[in-house]
Amino acid sequence: MSKYVVGVDVGGTSTKFGLFTTEGEKMDKWKIATDRKDNGMYLTGHITESIKERFVKHSISEGGLTGIGIGVPGFVDEASGIVDIAVNIGWENYPLSTNLADAFHVPVFINNDANLAAAGEHWQGAGKKEASIFFVTLGTGVGGGIIVNGDLVTGPSGTAGEIGHTITVPHGRLCSCGREGCLEEYVAAKGLQRSLRDYLRNFEGSSSLHKDSEVIDIYEAAKAGDALAVDIVNEAAYYLAYALANAATMINPEKIVIGGGISAAGETLMRPLVAHFKRFVLKEADKYLSFEFAQLGNDAGIYGATWLAMRRLGCFD
Amino acid sequence: MSKYVVGVDVGGTSTKFGLFTTEGEKMDKWKIATDRKDNGMYLTGHITESIKERFVKHSISEGGLTGIGIGVPGFVDEASGIVDIAVNIGWENYPLSTNLADAFHVPVFINNDANLAAAGEHWQGAGKKEASIFFVTLGTGVGGGIIVNGDLVTGPSGTAGEIGHTITVPHGRLCSCGREGCLEEYVAAKGLQRSLRDYLRNFEGSSSLHKDSEVIDIYEAAKAGDALAVDIVNEAAYYLAYALANAATMINPEKIVIGGGISAAGETLMRPLVAHFKRFVLKEADKYLSFEFAQLGNDAGIYGATWLAMRRLGCFD
Repeated sequence: MSKYVVGVDVGGTSTKFGLFTTEGEKMDKWKIATDRKDNGMYLTGHITESIKERFVKHSISEGGLTGIGIGVPGFVDEASGIVDIAVNIGWENYPLSTNLADAFHVPVFINNDANLAAAGEHWQGAGKKEASIFFVTLGTGVGGGIIVNGDLVTGPSGTAGEIGHTITVPHGRLCSCGREGCLEEYVAAKGLQRSLRDYLRNFEGSSSLHKDSEVIDIYEAAKAGDALAVDIVNEAAYYLAYALANAATMINPEKIVIGGGISAAGETLMRPLVAHFKRFVLKEADKYLSFEFAQLGNDAGIYGATWLAMRRLGCFD
Repeated sequence: MSKYVVGVDVGGTSTKFGLFTTEGEKMDKWKIATDRKDNGMYLTGHITESIKERFVKHSISEGGLTGIGIGVPGFVDEASGIVDIAVNIGWENYPLSTNLADAFHVPVFINNDANLAAAGEHWQGAGKKEASIFFVTLGTGVGGGIIVNGDLVTGPSGTAGEIGHTITVPHGRLCSCGREGCLEEYVAAKGLQRSLRDYLRNFEGSSSLHKDSEVIDIYEAAKAGDALAVDIVNEAAYYLAYALANAATMINPEKIVIGGGISAAGETLMRPLVAHFKRFVLKEADKYLSFEFAQLGNDAGIYGATWLAMRRLGCFD
């Protein structure tokens, strides 16, 4: 009889699921809307229900489930299975592992969503052949995850990989975390739009951009040679390169994997990023290092959540 | 019959040895002068001889040796056992593992000396109870090592832990590595003495320091309240705190362990360091984090080299 693992990726808008065999074969994937009502108190119930329905559909008995991995957009304590805080869901000191384990009577493994996206790329995506990768995801903000020696780095309070909150510009822009100069305020959607408004204040040339332009417009304009857009993208690439170079000098990964919506910018981002990076990084740390765009897109999280459960259950041993 | 492991720590002046049982009990430690003549070409022979002599002294047959761990002040490729470069010894593309393995017919495991000092503190010193530590050693320069998930982070070119070469002051002081603004140029002996000369140029007050003061004099003067010395130490603490805070935000260790000769400065360094750190670090990353001085002093390297051999040989499984 086959055994199964479910990987869950909780997002602010939708919650995604993957059903895998314990050999790592993907059987199904689906999603539900994320119910954030009353601080997300109904969400675990919906997740439970959705998994049970899908098991019925595939004629899998509940005894076939061996474990669940689940990624959460927030800080989690992997050891206790408690979500310290997930602002976008409303969870605070929320015993996610216990609640799900009670419903299924199997081990439940939790982690941060960006960490699990890193694990997903390491397992099935861009970091597939590497024992160590630094994954950075550029969406609204900046997330990240680190794999070393083939395992995920989490840390006791689950902040590992949080390059978005490393201080890149001392006394710089005020960040939502309360500190100044975090990388996140200079790159990804949040940072680029802030830069756009800053630059427009003193800009007297002609540009296709205006203060409410979307991030994708900024990249499109940069690709077309719009001088204002080129300056903005180049500045973001500069700060991201600086932070990644310090990370790479210190962690020495084999690959830096760039994911998230902004990675659609492609070479418009990658070219200045790599050029700046090479000037900032310790030469020896760059010796075996390469850059690559993520490959799994929105599925990275369910792959990573499944990998986490499989790894903790010893499926890879 | 007992089995043994030897841990070796190659330094620019002396090479240290530790003889341990495979249960981790220390039987002996000793050192020899490091022979750097002709690009260190005689050193491996001296190391071999010294180990064989010590085995005779302890009436251990050569068959009792199960493995050797060895730390080198430079960049090493752990997988191939080749020292890429160790400037202070003169080794370049030097097949250290093969040379030693040929003499003893046992596996030889190599790594960077600061990485192994981190491993030593993790095994028997200040980081004993922690699965993840960030170790920084302040000597002439700044070295470092990272333990996560109970294992050493090395990286494909062995630069992991090299916080001394993260760029802390953009467009700052020229570093010996050819880049500008590396942390190392602002802290440890090298950085403090550079700061002293910089500060003295425009200093008009009275101070016990002069342009050739030793590092320990700077700390002693700071402890005694000498305004110039306090400024210099405070600046070093500020930059070290900044770099460590970004590292801690991203790696989320349980403990930061401060080692090296300068750690003798004690609270004169630790007080401003922790104060600045708390302002720079992501709050969540600081939740379970503590600072501690290293405990093993100059023996950290031989403990770490022994730990490396024991771990790779499966003695801890």
